[in-house]
Amino acid sequence: MSPPPRDALHFPQSSRPFLEPYLPLHRSWHNPYLPDDSTPFPFTTLTFAQSLDSSISLAPGTQTALSGPETKAMTHYLRARHDGILVGIGTALADDPSLNCRLEGVGGYGGRGLNMQPRPVIVDPKGRWLDVAEGSKVMKLARERRGRGPWVVMAWTDDSEVLGRVNAIDRLLEGVGGKVLMVEPRTNKETEEKRLDWGDVLAMLKREGLDSLMVEGGQRVINELLREEYQELVNLVIITIAPTWLGQGGVVVSPERKSAEQGNASAVGRLTNTRWQQMGDDVVLCGQLPHKK
Amino acid sequence: MSPPPRDALHFPQSSRPFLEPYLPLHRSWHNPYLPDDSTPFPFTTLTFAQSLDSSISLAPGTQTALSGPETKAMTHYLRARHDGILVGIGTALADDPSLNCRLEGVGGYGGRGLNMQPRPVIVDPKGRWLDVAEGSKVMKLARERRGRGPWVVMAWTDDSEVLGRVNAIDRLLEGVGGKVLMVEPRTNKETEEKRLDWGDVLAMLKREGLDSLMVEGGQRVINELLREEYQELVNLVIITIAPTWLGQGGVVVSPERKSAEQGNASAVGRLTNTRWQQMGDDVVLCGQLPHKK
Ligand SMILES: NC(=O)c1ccc[n+]([C@@H]2O[C@H](COP(=O)([O-])OP(=O)(O)OC[C@H]3O[C@@H](n4cnc5c(N)ncnc54)[C@H](OP(=O)(O)O)[C@@H]3O)[C@@H](O)[C@H]2O)c1
Ligand SMILES: NC(=O)c1ccc[n+]([C@@H]2O[C@H](COP(=O)([O-])OP(=O)(O)OC[C@H]3O[C@@H](n4cnc5c(N)ncnc54)[C@H](OP(=O)(O)O)[C@@H]3O)[C@@H](O)[C@H]2O)c1
Repeated sequence: MSPPPRDALHFPQSSRPFLEPYLPLHRSWHNPYLPDDSTPFPFTTLTFAQSLDSSISLAPGTQTALSGPETKAMTHYLRARHDGILVGIGTALADDPSLNCRLEGVGGYGGRGLNMQPRPVIVDPKGRWLDVAEGSKVMKLARERRGRGPWVVMAWTDDSEVLGRVNAIDRLLEGVGGKVLMVEPRTNKETEEKRLDWGDVLAMLKREGLDSLMVEGGQRVINELLREEYQELVNLVIITIAPTWLGQGGVVVSPERKSAEQGNASAVGRLTNTRWQQMGDDVVLCGQLPHKK
Repeated sequence: MSPPPRDALHFPQSSRPFLEPYLPLHRSWHNPYLPDDSTPFPFTTLTFAQSLDSSISLAPGTQTALSGPETKAMTHYLRARHDGILVGIGTALADDPSLNCRLEGVGGYGGRGLNMQPRPVIVDPKGRWLDVAEGSKVMKLARERRGRGPWVVMAWTDDSEVLGRVNAIDRLLEGVGGKVLMVEPRTNKETEEKRLDWGDVLAMLKREGLDSLMVEGGQRVINELLREEYQELVNLVIITIAPTWLGQGGVVVSPERKSAEQGNASAVGRLTNTRWQQMGDDVVLCGQLPHKK
């Protein structure tokens, strides 16, 4: 155990009571009142930072700092409170995110081993991550034992080129305690398009041992999970809003409506049990989607 | 003076200290420390209610209740604290808004005469309001002395058809103490399109006696005033955000960027001196655009 490095973040005790009532209980607390574990899915928190005009970045592929220092520290606190962090491959390629927890006292930042470090999970059906994996921050941090080895969620296929990439990624990950996880894709009857179903992905992550998961982005992943059909899978939503307008042309979070019933449109979703808390210049919103049993 | 009617709204004293430091001093207070009155423009507050995905209504022409009761009452408190309320003709046609103040104790709602009632202002360059004016809520309330007679801002023209409408609207308004105000339109050199310049409109309203103005919508008006070139005219921004997603296809607030410099994009605007306050399920954001001297 070494002293926390200079880049360790601090999230003040005084800000925690606002979040705690919403968060899952941590396994490592050995709490006798563990939450009902009979659901096949992890406790799933959807969290991201947006502008007033609902953009999460200025343009596709442009990393955009939206959170101030207070809400950035909060995000790292949330990472310590979940077993895994999930992003789509679009985000992994655009932002080269660290996907570890840099909170003071966590493993690698003053704490023991990888204590409280979440598992990075990248949803990458076709293995596009291979091109950048070796030099990525996630791999670097895993080699330095300041983050766990990532899990890469890919789609089952018999395409030999993709299978080649599956194997290559798997070999890379072995060295750092990560692995490839394969999920059977589903075919959309109308468009014939193949995609992963979020129920399948989340159930697999639970079977692999993640009791809680924080989904951090990007645009496609968030917009899919906010659709009516997937809202049930989301237990908690935590959004940081920065008091800024990124303007037309940004990467926008806004879920698709159920059908093209424009004449008769209604809201796609509304949070309940909402609490808003100012942190620095930003606000943090916590709430639940009512469909969840 | 009659007792407040049943539809009068109440905005609790306890919520006011959050707003007061941002608001203009009211003329009727005869405050010896009146703000610097040397600017040619009214103190202009931009205020609206939006969803998390930055929509102000579900679809063009569909009135959408976004505010909860607490933030609705706040909007009426703000109306009492400004000399005028401005909307574009799109909003007047889509929503048939009342544009009066229904706060308990204000003229028509338990108060004397039209005391604290703001002046409704409709920006309607071509006089499209004529078709609905007679039966509109604004006219009804003015006739009942529960709101002031509206001012309709039109564009100077020599088109005899439009001039006919100018005269017809003017005659309607005379009966309720309203009037038509004409502004010289400006021609965009590139597109040859004629439009009213916000500097011209606001300066005219100041000359007509409005020291403070609340701009409430709709989409086009808000998006124009948030553009870099007009931000200077906005002294205060107050946004209500409801914890809901209206989904793709809504009427979105998001200002245009300065130029098509997508590769090099930066935020269009950022509020300073921000304060966020939860009211009911919603949050209210107060802030200033930094360009304002
Ligand atoms: N402000 C924030 O909090 C925040 C956080 C994260 C990201 N972002 C921003 O978000 C942007 C990236 O968004 P994005 O939409 O490009 O990327 P993304 O949502 O991270 O990833 C999208 C990709 O993931 C795969 N994927 C996602 N859902 C899938 C499903 N159901 N089935 C199969 N594959 C699926 C697909 O890969 P294939 O195309 O290979 O099939 C898809 O193209 C970046 O600009 C980033 O900066 C912002
Ligand atoms: N949630 C909220 O707080 C809120 C508040 C208000 C409105 N809304 C919504 O906003 C929507 C209406 O938005 P909108 O964009 O259609 O209408 P709008 O902004 O109210 O009015 C636009 C019209 O006003 C005139 N105008 C505005 N700026 C002008 C300028 N600089 N020069 C000349 N004319 C100008 C034009 O009239 P001409 O076309 O005749 O030239 C223009 O078409 C409705 O769906 C309404 O429900 C929401």
